[in-house]
Amino acid sequence: MREVDFTLSAGPTAASARTLAALGSPITYHYDPEFLDAFRRTERKVASIFRTESSVVMMQGEAVLGLEAAARGLVRPGDKVLNLVSGVFGKGMGMWLTDFGADLHEIEVPYDDVIDPGDVERFLESNPDTTMVAVVHCETPSGTATDVASIGRIAAARGVLTLVDCVSSVGGMAFEVDEWGLDVCVLGPQKCLGGPPGMSLMSVSERAWEVMEKNPQAPRGSFLSLLDWKRTWFGEGRFPFTPSVVDVHGVESVCDQILEEGVDASIARHAAAASACRAGVAAMGLRIWPRSEAIAANCVTSIAVPDGLDHDRIRSHARERYGVMLSGGQGAGNLVRIGHMGPTANGLHPVVGLLALGRSLLDMGAHVDVGAGVEAALASIAARSGAS
Amino acid sequence: MREVDFTLSAGPTAASARTLAALGSPITYHYDPEFLDAFRRTERKVASIFRTESSVVMMQGEAVLGLEAAARGLVRPGDKVLNLVSGVFGKGMGMWLTDFGADLHEIEVPYDDVIDPGDVERFLESNPDTTMVAVVHCETPSGTATDVASIGRIAAARGVLTLVDCVSSVGGMAFEVDEWGLDVCVLGPQKCLGGPPGMSLMSVSERAWEVMEKNPQAPRGSFLSLLDWKRTWFGEGRFPFTPSVVDVHGVESVCDQILEEGVDASIARHAAAASACRAGVAAMGLRIWPRSEAIAANCVTSIAVPDGLDHDRIRSHARERYGVMLSGGQGAGNLVRIGHMGPTANGLHPVVGLLALGRSLLDMGAHVDVGAGVEAALASIAARSGAS
Amino acid sequence: MREVDFTLSAGPTAASARTLAALGSPITYHYDPEFLDAFRRTERKVASIFRTESSVVMMQGEAVLGLEAAARGLVRPGDKVLNLVSGVFGKGMGMWLTDFGADLHEIEVPYDDVIDPGDVERFLESNPDTTMVAVVHCETPSGTATDVASIGRIAAARGVLTLVDCVSSVGGMAFEVDEWGLDVCVLGPQKCLGGPPGMSLMSVSERAWEVMEKNPQAPRGSFLSLLDWKRTWFGEGRFPFTPSVVDVHGVESVCDQILEEGVDASIARHAAAASACRAGVAAMGLRIWPRSEAIAANCVTSIAVPDGLDHDRIRSHARERYGVMLSGGQGAGNLVRIGHMGPTANGLHPVVGLLALGRSLLDMGAHVDVGAGVEAALASIAARSGAS
Amino acid sequence: MREVDFTLSAGPTAASARTLAALGSPITYHYDPEFLDAFRRTERKVASIFRTESSVVMMQGEAVLGLEAAARGLVRPGDKVLNLVSGVFGKGMGMWLTDFGADLHEIEVPYDDVIDPGDVERFLESNPDTTMVAVVHCETPSGTATDVASIGRIAAARGVLTLVDCVSSVGGMAFEVDEWGLDVCVLGPQKCLGGPPGMSLMSVSERAWEVMEKNPQAPRGSFLSLLDWKRTWFGEGRFPFTPSVVDVHGVESVCDQILEEGVDASIARHAAAASACRAGVAAMGLRIWPRSEAIAANCVTSIAVPDGLDHDRIRSHARERYGVMLSGGQGAGNLVRIGHMGPTANGLHPVVGLLALGRSLLDMGAHVDVGAGVEAALASIAARSGAS
Repeated sequence: MREVDFTLSAGPTAASARTLAALGSPITYHYDPEFLDAFRRTERKVASIFRTESSVVMMQGEAVLGLEAAARGLVRPGDKVLNLVSGVFGKGMGMWLTDFGADLHEIEVPYDDVIDPGDVERFLESNPDTTMVAVVHCETPSGTATDVASIGRIAAARGVLTLVDCVSSVGGMAFEVDEWGLDVCVLGPQKCLGGPPGMSLMSVSERAWEVMEKNPQAPRGSFLSLLDWKRTWFGEGRFPFTPSVVDVHGVESVCDQILEEGVDASIARHAAAASACRAGVAAMGLRIWPRSEAIAANCVTSIAVPDGLDHDRIRSHARERYGVMLSGGQGAGNLVRIGHMGPTANGLHPVVGLLALGRSLLDMGAHVDVGAGVEAALASIAARSGAS
Repeated sequence: MREVDFTLSAGPTAASARTLAALGSPITYHYDPEFLDAFRRTERKVASIFRTESSVVMMQGEAVLGLEAAARGLVRPGDKVLNLVSGVFGKGMGMWLTDFGADLHEIEVPYDDVIDPGDVERFLESNPDTTMVAVVHCETPSGTATDVASIGRIAAARGVLTLVDCVSSVGGMAFEVDEWGLDVCVLGPQKCLGGPPGMSLMSVSERAWEVMEKNPQAPRGSFLSLLDWKRTWFGEGRFPFTPSVVDVHGVESVCDQILEEGVDASIARHAAAASACRAGVAAMGLRIWPRSEAIAANCVTSIAVPDGLDHDRIRSHARERYGVMLSGGQGAGNLVRIGHMGPTANGLHPVVGLLALGRSLLDMGAHVDVGAGVEAALASIAARSGAS
Repeated sequence: MREVDFTLSAGPTAASARTLAALGSPITYHYDPEFLDAFRRTERKVASIFRTESSVVMMQGEAVLGLEAAARGLVRPGDKVLNLVSGVFGKGMGMWLTDFGADLHEIEVPYDDVIDPGDVERFLESNPDTTMVAVVHCETPSGTATDVASIGRIAAARGVLTLVDCVSSVGGMAFEVDEWGLDVCVLGPQKCLGGPPGMSLMSVSERAWEVMEKNPQAPRGSFLSLLDWKRTWFGEGRFPFTPSVVDVHGVESVCDQILEEGVDASIARHAAAASACRAGVAAMGLRIWPRSEAIAANCVTSIAVPDGLDHDRIRSHARERYGVMLSGGQGAGNLVRIGHMGPTANGLHPVVGLLALGRSLLDMGAHVDVGAGVEAALASIAARSGAS
Repeated sequence: MREVDFTLSAGPTAASARTLAALGSPITYHYDPEFLDAFRRTERKVASIFRTESSVVMMQGEAVLGLEAAARGLVRPGDKVLNLVSGVFGKGMGMWLTDFGADLHEIEVPYDDVIDPGDVERFLESNPDTTMVAVVHCETPSGTATDVASIGRIAAARGVLTLVDCVSSVGGMAFEVDEWGLDVCVLGPQKCLGGPPGMSLMSVSERAWEVMEKNPQAPRGSFLSLLDWKRTWFGEGRFPFTPSVVDVHGVESVCDQILEEGVDASIARHAAAASACRAGVAAMGLRIWPRSEAIAANCVTSIAVPDGLDHDRIRSHARERYGVMLSGGQGAGNLVRIGHMGPTANGLHPVVGLLALGRSLLDMGAHVDVGAGVEAALASIAARSGAS
């Protein structure tokens, strides 16, 4: 099998050499004083990226674990919960909330659109007994970004808890836990931070802890328990179970990298990559999947597949012929995604994605103007880099 | 802070350079065909180490995750379950089983002893409605090994399911899933395989799958769900969530290393290290924690702390003065553990543990004959290596 | 300073992850039996890539060291030597040959051209007392390839020694030491093998050893001495000085990689990359530096800089704005080079070079059709990959 | 073949994980601005370790290359040179000096002894026309250290140049280029710095440059030329040939590590390791090779092999049975060496050397008291570490 030359998927994404070196650094005992220090340093660095004074919990397990742990911890049977659905991950959260006993209410829009904060406000006005709003910042499968800044403030103003899936947005889009009044937020290091999949980086507000403490159904004595972390790790300096030394090293390294670059600079870099990618898509004669540029995410560009073609075949073709790995829509629709997250939001990486996608479409008989697409993307990059 | 020179803890243990290189190898998309291949290859390699034809499930999350997932999947409320308790991990399993609704029966022995298979047989004779036996092969915190070969056969002969914690034993002690008739076994790669913490490597028998399928309480749509893996991964070739590419690379590498060495050779190497270590302990004038050599584990030697001293202070002293990280008993008693697992079961590593422990005890006023201990350990190693 | 995203220089070139892992593997004592084995294995692998039964000497020091060592060893004062000059490295060899006392004769052509084997044949006919011909296979600075197959055979037929600089050609162009009758050949691992700079990989024929043995001026007791290697290493199994364990690990790894791929497959891959790159250059409205495609090298494409522009400024611009490192001509002329050697001869890497060069030229006011260039390069790659 | 567990040789020595990560970091073009910066930074860091304001030249090639380059550059035919011989490397330098045309005078002592600075002073008094003194600081093969502080000052006071082989001493013993008035010093990174073999790190005084500039025989246009580095690199910012990017990364890393630790702290650490090792040797009933402790080196302990035994067989035995690589005397005598340099001067590493040597001697029938040796070494370490 041909080795991949460029991993331009929607995460896990290609990691930097520095990150890989950290992942390959010696494994120590988890109670070695050096590792204990590293763990605590990393918590503080994650907090700094989240821009929060709240607790940071670093659970082992891909972000889905963190989201499940949070939902299980926060929801009491019968709680009226508003779940916002604009894509695959929002939909899945609704299933969990139902499973965990919530009185579920949803605002749902097509998966190429995003939630209107006004609708959230109206719902909360009419349903003052709502206990929580669950929202996905970036629906990675469809490449859209919802206005969590507004939704967070609307909920906070009414004392309603927020559970935010910011798995793929932090580091690539503005995200302000304290400023926006968010309660539990779950970040995946394998997206805009360019780190390893395998951890859930979470911020937990004081209020969220209180809700969990009072929730008899919140997991306790379980791998899914946030309260175990609170009790054993924060309370006694003892891990509830062996943390993954390897992932922690990787996560500390990507935190260092983004903090050295500056979180704002990283966000600007992701915005520039997304902008160049979208310019290329349009000039190539293709259409982005989201209804408008305004709601398109910074970390990934979703592109509608031309009629008569199938995203899976396109992606296999790009992978086998050109050595470029792209992503599909994971159920969100017939779309192809070019990831530009972490290191792949640098330099000409997005253009490589356009090259592979454009030429693959040509090979399969579609009408695309690859040259024009590439020129537009380069012009966008040139305009930005000239300014710096 | 002084950097550690030797990690001789009871796991996570020091990894080989080859393992670290695998952990630091490029992160790819989890649906990259290369990664899919690697994942499937690794499953087959784990099966080969387990010596089983059954399914292998590689869940993300330290072995505690796998144990919880298995217990949740297998136990139906009201099931009569026999739990064998000879240490900290057996005790914890009982709490889970109770939580999950089992009608719990336990055979418990002091934590320096092991379960007598005859007692298990007698219990099952008297309780023919028992559905499952849960047993820990190696109680790592106390350094003892229970006779799972016999217990497995006793249970299998009666059609009773077995749930086996073989987290720290596989690769260091004989372990034969099919030969012994075991149903669900959970291995941690960070012990005798010398790999990364962060995965649960599990064998699941056909019968165990059937029980889970019929169990309405078995987790479904959860990070803790074995059935999700069966349905989406085995059934549809789709991961239930993003696996940790990094850990999988590390696990494949350690599987390769042990299969190249030969599982039996690896077991012999661990046995030799344990034997040398115990010889040193005795000659030094110390006492191993287990009641007898016959029940001492191969992967770690637990040593009773002399009266008046505290294991924590001894270990801090060894770490700060001599750069050697040892483990404590994690609640099993006032003991210190020298790990000899994976790479640290090689060569003179166990002697380094004796040096650090012995000199630390001397520094703290204990009467130990370090020279005699070292000479005895070397003699044991010399005898073995001379034979080869 | 911005980090480089793509190293598309003319060597050292970007190394594969596997090569980097080998370079970062543990350093052992150079007389450790494992290292001695690795050194000998690597010699045999290099011989296999050279396609020779002759000795292989792996000297420490970038290929310039090997070339100097060879020239010093082979030339006796007064020897009539024919030096072929079609570029910077050929020119430099002439200076050395003069320094070392040769009666130097040169055939020189402009640096965008190559030597005609017919001219060599005519010279040797008229000068039967010629002892050696020195020739550069690929003049990397100007990106041209001379017909060493013919020249080697012409010299061999007359019993004239050949000293061949194949530093950047082996692995990227056909090279057959025994078939072509070559005497001393010097290869640099940092070019088409994608390895570390720091070693000279040399084939030495029996006849060349004899000449050196009889040459009182050949270096002895010196870092530059091939004879020292023969006497101490081949004769006594003792290194004349400490070899670089790190480089040897890297060189063995790149040999493994090319032998697994197949040397012919590697050559085809380099030819395809070069072909795509040249197609792109032409369609973009630029001109390759060599007089004709027929003499252009496989490992690097040299492109004439449009009038009024300077290669240094273009390259700085490409590096700073687009994160792509290109090479200049090192004195061969006002040209820019896109390297496609080792890993960068894979996939879309050459197109990335065209993107960076094209857009930089546009930014600086040149008239280039980047879109057309990219399309032509992609079409070339598509045609090749479709065939496979 | 059994893999080595402990590399306790006399260099190349085991490198730290951080050093290995640096060696495995991406290879860039040598004119990439990042690499140019790294190269210049590293020069300054080496100067800081040398404690000099003079130029630092970092030549490619193991330290033997630097020594040859320096000797060739400094010696004019007929120059009266005093060469000090207390071991293998001093002896070799004399051969070179003769080859290069010096009027050679030597003070030679047995290889278990060192040069008396008084003898140097007397020679220079009687031979005021002496142009240079060549001296080896640490004769690694015999494990002795000569008083270069005094010899340097004696020579400097008379305007006599010094050429100092400090290959294995810097970082492990006090070494002050400017304070001691030394002219050309050659350091090997693979010894007390714990780095890769493959570079010669050199300090060159202004006076030394003048001598070379005026020396018509000094190498020019050669891999062995210091003057090329001066002209092209210092003068024009151009490398005389491609430097080894890999080695430079490794050297910068080890410089960082020693500068973070503090050069004095590193020296103290090596002194402590040597002291513990010698205590162990004596208590074991063995004899160090040097005539007295006062002249024993910090970086390696040479031990006289008991009568009737051969160092090669002992070392093979230790390697095969116990996985420990020790060094022999490289011609200095029937001795075995335990290296404690760089990372192996940490913690219990020297004791591991004693274990392997002692037990191997026992296995071969010698009378050694391993237990007493180990206890004495541990007592020495305990005394030091207790003080800190």
